[in-house]
Amino acid sequence: MLVSGGLDSAVTLALCAAEGFEPSALSFAYGQRHEVELEAAARVAHSLGAREHRTAQIDLRIFGGSALTADIPVPQHRSPDETRHQIPITYVPARNTIFLSYALAWAEVLGAEAIFLGVNAIDYSGYPDCRPEFLRAFEQLARVATKAGVEGIPVRIHAPLLELSKAEIIRRGQELGVDFSLTHSCYAPAADGAACGLCDSCQLRLQGFREAGLSDPIRYATA
Amino acid sequence: MLVSGGLDSAVTLALCAAEGFEPSALSFAYGQRHEVELEAAARVAHSLGAREHRTAQIDLRIFGGSALTADIPVPQHRSPDETRHQIPITYVPARNTIFLSYALAWAEVLGAEAIFLGVNAIDYSGYPDCRPEFLRAFEQLARVATKAGVEGIPVRIHAPLLELSKAEIIRRGQELGVDFSLTHSCYAPAADGAACGLCDSCQLRLQGFREAGLSDPIRYATA
Repeated sequence: MLVSGGLDSAVTLALCAAEGFEPSALSFAYGQRHEVELEAAARVAHSLGAREHRTAQIDLRIFGGSALTADIPVPQHRSPDETRHQIPITYVPARNTIFLSYALAWAEVLGAEAIFLGVNAIDYSGYPDCRPEFLRAFEQLARVATKAGVEGIPVRIHAPLLELSKAEIIRRGQELGVDFSLTHSCYAPAADGAACGLCDSCQLRLQGFREAGLSDPIRYATA
Repeated sequence: MLVSGGLDSAVTLALCAAEGFEPSALSFAYGQRHEVELEAAARVAHSLGAREHRTAQIDLRIFGGSALTADIPVPQHRSPDETRHQIPITYVPARNTIFLSYALAWAEVLGAEAIFLGVNAIDYSGYPDCRPEFLRAFEQLARVATKAGVEGIPVRIHAPLLELSKAEIIRRGQELGVDFSLTHSCYAPAADGAACGLCDSCQLRLQGFREAGLSDPIRYATA
């Protein structure tokens, strides 16, 4: 299970455990600006009962090309409606392909039957690698790429949040007892870890909590 | 273009340049025992005219599961015929999937139209991720995974050695003027960099040179 430390991966991990899987959690230190999310990933993995949590060190900065890894400003003050249908500058080229490839390697070593990830096609329709056709293509790749797949035990890709709105994700998490105060979503947090409240990710999260009729327990620099 | 420093990637790079492409070379430091191959990769990339050469640091040891990255002995004294149709212990789970994912990220940043790699389905039929169906599945994935793919400029995957025997690869390299003394193939080289002559990879290489009627210019510990 891919765990970023964000709200979506926390809810996905809770769903995965609720379905009777025994998740092993995988995070990435990929040169992201918001490395504070890795502390959130460890908290989320432990609080929601992952068997173990590993962090792969990878360096996507060697290629550049994204506001999350290169020296490009993170956009602020854009509403979710504005950003919904374009590929944002925070898109990291082939990121989910790389993440799933690592997950596939670990899944094969573990003999895992499934990879869970918290991607969402509604609120992130601008990211090509958050779409159902991407996940189906990766599942097909996994079938032919690995020893397990060749031997007839292909790994399945589960993305249970794919068709849910942010508000619906928050409500599911609430039902499953997810402690949202452990999660982190901001692309450009303050030095003390407070969320900026202004970037696309914060805007989306705050709108989701509003629509779900709940208050967001994390700390915002702009509050 | 993925460049390992082995014979196959050297010939692929020469073919890629001969076809008029301007290759950028990508290698991986992935915790392999035979890190000497990275020096070979740099020599090969420069001698065959790559525009640039980058090495991505990735750590596949965090998952284990292969003789190339975990503490499992590298098999010796097996003939190519013995090993041709089984998945060897030197198989690294999902390795080519991970490598191609990185190549895809860089290709997208560069606006590259193709990814070349030197995989071979004849001599490595035991590796699931060296087969044509794997490459086709990855090409399909690339079409839906990236901004360029979504915008109708999918990256193509070229594996020009796919159906060639090792002897044929060596003859093509000879025709293209590849300096084989720069390449490195051994899974378990001596401290001074000499090839062992005994592992599967050395056996395959030596048999290829014999069948091509050429002598291998690299140094073997067992010579």
